[in-house]
Amino acid sequence: MTNRRGDKATRRRGENSRLRVSASAGPRASLITLLTDFGNADYFVAAVKGVILAANPTAKIVDITHDVPPQDIETAAFTLLAVAAAFPAGTIHVVVVDPGVGSARRPILIRLGEQVFVGPDNGIFSYVCEAKENLKFSPEVFHLTNTKYFRRPVSTTFHGRDIFAPVAAALSNGVKPEELGSLISNIVRLSPLRPNASRDGGLQARIIHIDRFGNCVTNINHDDLTAKMIAAGATLRVKGKSVKSFHSYFAEETSRKGKVFGIWGSAGFLEIAAVNESAAKILNARRGDSVIVTGG
Amino acid sequence: MTNRRGDKATRRRGENSRLRVSASAGPRASLITLLTDFGNADYFVAAVKGVILAANPTAKIVDITHDVPPQDIETAAFTLLAVAAAFPAGTIHVVVVDPGVGSARRPILIRLGEQVFVGPDNGIFSYVCEAKENLKFSPEVFHLTNTKYFRRPVSTTFHGRDIFAPVAAALSNGVKPEELGSLISNIVRLSPLRPNASRDGGLQARIIHIDRFGNCVTNINHDDLTAKMIAAGATLRVKGKSVKSFHSYFAEETSRKGKVFGIWGSAGFLEIAAVNESAAKILNARRGDSVIVTGG
Amino acid sequence: MTNRRGDKATRRRGENSRLRVSASAGPRASLITLLTDFGNADYFVAAVKGVILAANPTAKIVDITHDVPPQDIETAAFTLLAVAAAFPAGTIHVVVVDPGVGSARRPILIRLGEQVFVGPDNGIFSYVCEAKENLKFSPEVFHLTNTKYFRRPVSTTFHGRDIFAPVAAALSNGVKPEELGSLISNIVRLSPLRPNASRDGGLQARIIHIDRFGNCVTNINHDDLTAKMIAAGATLRVKGKSVKSFHSYFAEETSRKGKVFGIWGSAGFLEIAAVNESAAKILNARRGDSVIVTGG
Repeated sequence: MTNRRGDKATRRRGENSRLRVSASAGPRASLITLLTDFGNADYFVAAVKGVILAANPTAKIVDITHDVPPQDIETAAFTLLAVAAAFPAGTIHVVVVDPGVGSARRPILIRLGEQVFVGPDNGIFSYVCEAKENLKFSPEVFHLTNTKYFRRPVSTTFHGRDIFAPVAAALSNGVKPEELGSLISNIVRLSPLRPNASRDGGLQARIIHIDRFGNCVTNINHDDLTAKMIAAGATLRVKGKSVKSFHSYFAEETSRKGKVFGIWGSAGFLEIAAVNESAAKILNARRGDSVIVTGG
Repeated sequence: MTNRRGDKATRRRGENSRLRVSASAGPRASLITLLTDFGNADYFVAAVKGVILAANPTAKIVDITHDVPPQDIETAAFTLLAVAAAFPAGTIHVVVVDPGVGSARRPILIRLGEQVFVGPDNGIFSYVCEAKENLKFSPEVFHLTNTKYFRRPVSTTFHGRDIFAPVAAALSNGVKPEELGSLISNIVRLSPLRPNASRDGGLQARIIHIDRFGNCVTNINHDDLTAKMIAAGATLRVKGKSVKSFHSYFAEETSRKGKVFGIWGSAGFLEIAAVNESAAKILNARRGDSVIVTGG
Repeated sequence: MTNRRGDKATRRRGENSRLRVSASAGPRASLITLLTDFGNADYFVAAVKGVILAANPTAKIVDITHDVPPQDIETAAFTLLAVAAAFPAGTIHVVVVDPGVGSARRPILIRLGEQVFVGPDNGIFSYVCEAKENLKFSPEVFHLTNTKYFRRPVSTTFHGRDIFAPVAAALSNGVKPEELGSLISNIVRLSPLRPNASRDGGLQARIIHIDRFGNCVTNINHDDLTAKMIAAGATLRVKGKSVKSFHSYFAEETSRKGKVFGIWGSAGFLEIAAVNESAAKILNARRGDSVIVTGG
């Protein structure tokens, strides 16, 4: 369903801020986030935490979520994009949605802006890379090859515990990315986050995420659909319905049941929502569904 | 379904303990709890944590729960009441169940006893206020108006991240409530927690919560239904059934399937329970259902 | 369904490492894990954390899981076994799956290797004890009788908050097990983890856990089923199906839908799995189902 390409990770070194996490040696109270599809019912998440805390007892671990649907790389990529900017410089993000665990897919580390990302090279980092690249940052990607920093023995089924957790702990203890592996020049990419221009001068966008409230997050941002375009009568076309109403907050319109509207979501994207109802249910919408913008 | 009233928050200053959290300036390892309806599958909770930890890296964040049913203010109010007393003085509780986000509903802060509560003014704090008022504490309520302490820009859909998280972080960094907003004299209230006296000298109570095990928590406490009353033959009437049996622990009675009994729950309220079964299912009970106490 | 026996906890003192947690007095940033069937929707878990942090603000609390199915002692026992070794020396594990709360079942503490385990004496610690005993460690079991370290009043329904949390906090503050209760010589045990030899020289094993991905974890370890035996053609018989295929990682075989295979899982046990499918669903398998190993 998703095209993945092995694109060159462009490198424009001048604009890249230096990463605080590798500024000096020794353990510190680093912030390490975890984003996985492990669920919360099994021992998987706790095993990852145990390994990190055994190596760096002062590490501060924050769960992003472990309820990514099993092996759903796109959901993980969106969630990471939506949350990374809320975390401070120096944060280490460990992302493990890893259907290819044990196969030839590469374990990688990405230094990007002032944060580090650790996980398998399967596309999970592509949205966060694309967004940063648009801001002129360029990712530095390392293939994690230094087995000295892995847990022994490395299982073939749980690299979250055996590779990514100890690597994150090593980073938090001051080990530099350069010691953990070798610089590489490409990563696996999902379909670009950017909407396409459509033939009639509008936008060909898509739903990239549906949240627990049923809000449909599109890949349309403020630059794609300006206030001026909305004022001029821009219309969304999704699942056969036209959406011409744009709200500034959820509770604004409470009168009409079953009515969907556009609203700027907290991740910076236009969302299609409904008041106290699931817009996804009303529209019968799924991730990947097309959203066409015309007029405006 | 729920009556909400804008009651005066009574103020009896003499009995109010001084809050440790505002005793001195500077960041400290403050305890900040989070209670929301965000669920755990999206990025929402982690965004709140990222904002807090960016502002105060030493803050200690504890999740109460994020599985409050969407927009269920009563469940949040009960959960907060049941757990607040287990936390130490100085704890800052952030509660975000916020159907009115972006509308005119006020963001507030309540200083109460030795803890602080932060969230929207929609009734979520009314049980904890009522319980403390019964102990002669009086809440001091502040309308959060000082935008200097908000995240910029403030979105219209995610005040948890943009207002409540940075305000909690500011408190944990030693900022005083007085700097964050202005003292106000009323908050939105849910129906009182106190059962009513019924015509025949008994009690007109209700189910205020149903937990994961199906135990039905009533709003009857030890003062409402004394050991003496139970010994004298008090009876509960709920969903057309009479409950005359009171247990002191769950495993006490294991013989009769489908039998419900009264038991004092760990939140200090009488619960209607069954052994290894859901009493709510047996009774077909829901929150808000009436519980009548007679005799005793 | 499960046989429980009150076995003697063998004591071979010479091999027992001394526990760091009791080495010196005073609060420290101890690691305390929580493993319960409380779920995440209610106030239960947060109440336990509040009590611990009120007694030791520097304690570091890690959730193992709270989604053990209600009162499912076997799942808790397996989960604890699978994760304990990932945690460092000095870790205090609090395990509360406690159908007998309030009854005569004993609250206990077990000092084992360099970790401590706290919870009810109902079998939840038997797998971790058996595994350590196989490595010549011997558990020291204490009956928690010193009510001075309990929360007052002790409820009859929530010993997680009122007994196990304050005891764990006391341990993390340097209180020695000997001060918390008296040494006892037996604990409740589940059926042994070890597979039995079958009549024809094979193994009579069982499924001890099914994880969120539907992988069926057996109680067969590397000593029970060696690489040599697999090479010689060992076969698993489970739910009427024969399994002769053994993979080294999940993504290895992607061609045949509905095919199950054996794979060494990350907890050290043989698992029966399928590619991107639930093996449990394919086999209609449940915990406790028999797995027969022949040949090899």
